[in-house]
Amino acid sequence: MTEAVRAALRVQRVELPSWAFGNSGTRFKVFAQRGVPRTPFEKVQDAAQVHRYTGVAPTVALHIPWDRVDDYTHLAGFAKEHGVGLGTINANVFQDDDYMLGSVTNPDPAVRRKAIDHLLECVDIAAQVGVRDVKLWFSDGTNYPGQDSIRVRQDRLAQALRETYARLNPDQRLLLEYKLFEPAFYTTDVPDWGTAYAHCLRLGEKAQVVIDTGHHAPGTNIEFIVAFLLREQKLGAFDFNSRFYADDDLMVGSADPFQLFRIMHEIVSADALKSGAGIAFMLDQCHNIEPKIPAQIRSVMNVQEATAKALLVDHDALAEAQRAGDVLGANAVFMDAYNTDVRPLLADVRREMGLDPDPVAAYQRSGYGDKIVAERVGGQQAGWGA
Amino acid sequence: MTEAVRAALRVQRVELPSWAFGNSGTRFKVFAQRGVPRTPFEKVQDAAQVHRYTGVAPTVALHIPWDRVDDYTHLAGFAKEHGVGLGTINANVFQDDDYMLGSVTNPDPAVRRKAIDHLLECVDIAAQVGVRDVKLWFSDGTNYPGQDSIRVRQDRLAQALRETYARLNPDQRLLLEYKLFEPAFYTTDVPDWGTAYAHCLRLGEKAQVVIDTGHHAPGTNIEFIVAFLLREQKLGAFDFNSRFYADDDLMVGSADPFQLFRIMHEIVSADALKSGAGIAFMLDQCHNIEPKIPAQIRSVMNVQEATAKALLVDHDALAEAQRAGDVLGANAVFMDAYNTDVRPLLADVRREMGLDPDPVAAYQRSGYGDKIVAERVGGQQAGWGA
Amino acid sequence: MTEAVRAALRVQRVELPSWAFGNSGTRFKVFAQRGVPRTPFEKVQDAAQVHRYTGVAPTVALHIPWDRVDDYTHLAGFAKEHGVGLGTINANVFQDDDYMLGSVTNPDPAVRRKAIDHLLECVDIAAQVGVRDVKLWFSDGTNYPGQDSIRVRQDRLAQALRETYARLNPDQRLLLEYKLFEPAFYTTDVPDWGTAYAHCLRLGEKAQVVIDTGHHAPGTNIEFIVAFLLREQKLGAFDFNSRFYADDDLMVGSADPFQLFRIMHEIVSADALKSGAGIAFMLDQCHNIEPKIPAQIRSVMNVQEATAKALLVDHDALAEAQRAGDVLGANAVFMDAYNTDVRPLLADVRREMGLDPDPVAAYQRSGYGDKIVAERVGGQQAGWGA
Amino acid sequence: MTEAVRAALRVQRVELPSWAFGNSGTRFKVFAQRGVPRTPFEKVQDAAQVHRYTGVAPTVALHIPWDRVDDYTHLAGFAKEHGVGLGTINANVFQDDDYMLGSVTNPDPAVRRKAIDHLLECVDIAAQVGVRDVKLWFSDGTNYPGQDSIRVRQDRLAQALRETYARLNPDQRLLLEYKLFEPAFYTTDVPDWGTAYAHCLRLGEKAQVVIDTGHHAPGTNIEFIVAFLLREQKLGAFDFNSRFYADDDLMVGSADPFQLFRIMHEIVSADALKSGAGIAFMLDQCHNIEPKIPAQIRSVMNVQEATAKALLVDHDALAEAQRAGDVLGANAVFMDAYNTDVRPLLADVRREMGLDPDPVAAYQRSGYGDKIVAERVGGQQAGWGA
Repeated sequence: MTEAVRAALRVQRVELPSWAFGNSGTRFKVFAQRGVPRTPFEKVQDAAQVHRYTGVAPTVALHIPWDRVDDYTHLAGFAKEHGVGLGTINANVFQDDDYMLGSVTNPDPAVRRKAIDHLLECVDIAAQVGVRDVKLWFSDGTNYPGQDSIRVRQDRLAQALRETYARLNPDQRLLLEYKLFEPAFYTTDVPDWGTAYAHCLRLGEKAQVVIDTGHHAPGTNIEFIVAFLLREQKLGAFDFNSRFYADDDLMVGSADPFQLFRIMHEIVSADALKSGAGIAFMLDQCHNIEPKIPAQIRSVMNVQEATAKALLVDHDALAEAQRAGDVLGANAVFMDAYNTDVRPLLADVRREMGLDPDPVAAYQRSGYGDKIVAERVGGQQAGWGA
Repeated sequence: MTEAVRAALRVQRVELPSWAFGNSGTRFKVFAQRGVPRTPFEKVQDAAQVHRYTGVAPTVALHIPWDRVDDYTHLAGFAKEHGVGLGTINANVFQDDDYMLGSVTNPDPAVRRKAIDHLLECVDIAAQVGVRDVKLWFSDGTNYPGQDSIRVRQDRLAQALRETYARLNPDQRLLLEYKLFEPAFYTTDVPDWGTAYAHCLRLGEKAQVVIDTGHHAPGTNIEFIVAFLLREQKLGAFDFNSRFYADDDLMVGSADPFQLFRIMHEIVSADALKSGAGIAFMLDQCHNIEPKIPAQIRSVMNVQEATAKALLVDHDALAEAQRAGDVLGANAVFMDAYNTDVRPLLADVRREMGLDPDPVAAYQRSGYGDKIVAERVGGQQAGWGA
Repeated sequence: MTEAVRAALRVQRVELPSWAFGNSGTRFKVFAQRGVPRTPFEKVQDAAQVHRYTGVAPTVALHIPWDRVDDYTHLAGFAKEHGVGLGTINANVFQDDDYMLGSVTNPDPAVRRKAIDHLLECVDIAAQVGVRDVKLWFSDGTNYPGQDSIRVRQDRLAQALRETYARLNPDQRLLLEYKLFEPAFYTTDVPDWGTAYAHCLRLGEKAQVVIDTGHHAPGTNIEFIVAFLLREQKLGAFDFNSRFYADDDLMVGSADPFQLFRIMHEIVSADALKSGAGIAFMLDQCHNIEPKIPAQIRSVMNVQEATAKALLVDHDALAEAQRAGDVLGANAVFMDAYNTDVRPLLADVRREMGLDPDPVAAYQRSGYGDKIVAERVGGQQAGWGA
Repeated sequence: MTEAVRAALRVQRVELPSWAFGNSGTRFKVFAQRGVPRTPFEKVQDAAQVHRYTGVAPTVALHIPWDRVDDYTHLAGFAKEHGVGLGTINANVFQDDDYMLGSVTNPDPAVRRKAIDHLLECVDIAAQVGVRDVKLWFSDGTNYPGQDSIRVRQDRLAQALRETYARLNPDQRLLLEYKLFEPAFYTTDVPDWGTAYAHCLRLGEKAQVVIDTGHHAPGTNIEFIVAFLLREQKLGAFDFNSRFYADDDLMVGSADPFQLFRIMHEIVSADALKSGAGIAFMLDQCHNIEPKIPAQIRSVMNVQEATAKALLVDHDALAEAQRAGDVLGANAVFMDAYNTDVRPLLADVRREMGLDPDPVAAYQRSGYGDKIVAERVGGQQAGWGA
């Protein structure tokens, strides 16, 4: 069994978000950190560091327009030179003043047109650099009861999705993300997995749901949603992060590592870990107070640790106890895997991959952190919202 | 406008739950009240009182086996004599010892068979008395991670639903209810509207989703779900009640009357109030510490008041403000209706219907409450769970 | 009774926050509005408009350093000329880069010193302009388990509070606000009323707790806290706003008007509405997408409406039903007041005060909104965070 | 370090609840299990089994009147013969019909008198058998706004507590438990730690707060409360259990083992693990669907595992990283302890104590489970609520 586990861990892939390397914060304050990238190219360089030490994070997701460049092919080439590739294209229709009352669901048809055009642009960018996935998240919603018609906004949303979906080439996918609230505080137009699922179902096979682990109401059982969408073949991707309260965007696995294990158990149980299964595992985090690169390394490692534990579950013993209605026995099999310290196993896997067994220490020793602090002086630091 | 509002209020219908007239409580204690019914017949008599004074509650939902009788045609006739009719048949597969680990999703196929047979029995009972709706709520789920396979339980659930759906006659409907948690504390097999929706979609047009207003995670926007399911033509019924925390089953409109107004606004906006729209409006409450009959009367009145306010929304002015992006203006139109005191209007409507304008006072004067306390001595009181 | 109600409404006072007139938003985007003030003086002018049309909002709370001026006496004189006065001084120790890991609880003693010095400055400013209340809210906390010692941070907090309290003159008060989370996402150093209460208790009589209605965990019964702190004589002030999810900072009364009524009922029941009772009623809101001045007017009116309903509760009938254990009767007395349309009563009260019965319409007719859009061109708009 | 850890683990103590061995369930159904005790004596026998295999659970808490016997000295002697002793006396004032509207806060003074008399009886029972702690939990509250006066109920509560406190002998303590909701659904008279703390403060040093880990609002940071009450010297005891949603009463550590570790970290950091520190660590769980004795054994082991991890935290390294503001470093030190597999260490500790390293397996082999199924036939099974 161990060799199969090692093999699975070697081929696991986690995608990094370009925006995690820029400054981020809350509405109260964005704290600037030294050495933060000023261009999409510098973000790619930082992401490449994460891959260099973990070996399993070879792609960088972009956010348009935050990562807008004149020549995406050039950016892709730059990434390749640094040992990584471009990943999912994330559309952003929430930062123009026009979008105050919504983007694709705005009451004003001109604003809706502008927003849809941006979505189409994202599909084209993705096509240009050969990227499969375009991810859509809409901040659209309302703040006050009566402000707009819930139903009419759904009609507008459906229209925008149809038009975007029609632009996809045969190899592309549309990933639709849902979120309970924020920045809208009364209604959100895609608030839950059911809404995303229903829209994706009407669009067709190339439309898939994204689960952001921080986008649910308190008490929501996320692994249930994972299992359900897998069964329906409608799970397209994860945005991994952690939360204690709302969409806190902390490092994945830092708030509730047991939950992350339960999520990965559903993935492993459905044999959906391998890349052919079509699930994109992405990080989507904000490192407001901690240094960004080591935080991303730590996050990748947290995903690996949860995965390793999930791979160690004795599925035969589990199924046997489940069939027998042995509540304590089944739970014990499950917890036995969770309680295992998988760090030695992962250190071995890293050695097999020619990596340092301790990625954080290796990065710290490299001097890269000091180097960017020294070199990246002047210019406009990239921010989560910029 | 007023006459249309009055007309709509005169034809509005609310279904009463037989079990609300029996004793109920929490896991800590069921407090017995005097005069509580001991048979389904006495429950029907009590329900008839609610209709007598409100004029809009002419049907009584049954819970099988709580309301099992030898001859349902006889019970239907008894109801008719008392001025009411039988309503939705509610299946109950959670009170046999066999169901400890689930009913239709139990690991044991024999238990699943037993549970499905009960569902089929309910379809047959409904057919026998000419009732359209069979409502299914499953307490099925697990308490501990690993206890059972989330996905396999979905397979079992789908199988049970298919078999039950196949038993429906052309005029019948299967109503599927969802609930976040309780009595299961880790996973619930139908935890949210998305799950119920997806199953109903596969079953076909006669399968519809039930929204119980107390069955959501904190922060869930229920009126969004109402609007969404109406747009998808998949909303079949409401179980009305109130909650401050979990599934508290308090009187509808008592915890958040503004929310009830917002829900009824979506109903009115979609022209789904009229009986032809196919939405069943039912109460599902537990009157643990208050007398049952006046509590049901008060609940029906709360639904009426929220509906009257929703009917008073100036839809033209609202749409105009919404189109203009006038956030405060649209909200003001909406709140103007909510802030109206509709009790005089409803008193008028009742007078037009030949009723006392104050149903609670009329009931209190009738002496019925004292009469049942005096007469219903001995025997086994009906309980929510029995 | 009515005349007493009118009298109470005439003397009710609501304090306005200077920052509500500036731009605000979420971490995703701050949408700029035209005509927004660029200086503390312009904020005072806008606030004076709200008082002009409502007659019950004669003071403006300041936020230091957002409203820092060279000469506070001059600002106070300017306010007086515009018919209003300066109110509570709000300390702000969350927007310097130094405060990334906390202010008064920061691990670094130099940062703590800087933060405490700012608190002392706020006390001095308040003393200088004769303001009674200094309000403290700390964004301090941690994002990750283990990041800092919960207990040691309490020691540091206690020290800062002691030093600040010692600076108060005999007529001043220290108001301590609590908040569940945001911007800290794991621990917050003053997360709940119990923590604020315990610290205030040790400080002495001049330290009082502030309840911000948006700062609680889901399901928290705020009116219970109001009643409890009133009984303990430790309730000093309210920050009023509304929330559906987290600290949404919507207009007070817009999300759950029934809750606001219940809160005001506790105030009225304890005879704490009158200014001599020592409770400061303040707004603390962000008008992210709606125009600021009419939103403040609407908010003041919402507080008035909830108060009027609370004043209409028949306390004798309520107490009688409560004593008798008449659950439905007591609730009916309570709801009777809530269901009353108090807008005509408030229109009368405004006429008696020489005001337009419809403050929003009067403001809209005044042309002030257009005037500031035309005049306030150039310069740096004030923002919630600036 | 390891020997100190082992020593701490050897002397750690966990108290068992007699009621966990009886049947329990939800308002929907109590599923009966075979072999369940029928008397307090049989409950003590079962509890003795848990101690036999874990070695750290030598006392059994009683619930009066569930565990009422004619002669408590006799019961204490019986326990001693079985290798255990009697523990905390839990008062129960929620299961008489008189308590429908409350016990010590009931509007009816006669009911309040009855309830207080029961509390005094519990103090006397505890004194009689030499037990230090009397634990009070009140189900008191209201279901509907207006039903009763929040403030007046606090006055009644304070009076009951004063009278009970006065009855304590110098060696006794009054432990006051709080709970967010259930069975009351609108207000609860002791809903949060702040309320319990404030009452205990007024009572005096012998009054201490109990933290039940399942009694909080969603998102509440329990370890903060632990740290705060320890700092205030007002933490008296824990009721351990797990929850995903509300007061689910699952096995401690089964829903969020990382949270349990964080709680135990605060205990260890304050050197409050040792019995002299005055913190009683109790289980309070309902094993609705799993066998009771092995579930209790597993629960004790879960507490031990979380404790062992907390004992392994490198406090020097942690403090150093915290002082340096090294967010990732401090978190890494913390997680290093959590990620350690402490099961081998605990197996060693058990061997040192002369116990089987695998308590569950040892119990299963003992045949005790089969024996009680065979012997305990007839009679009335004990239930959580009986």
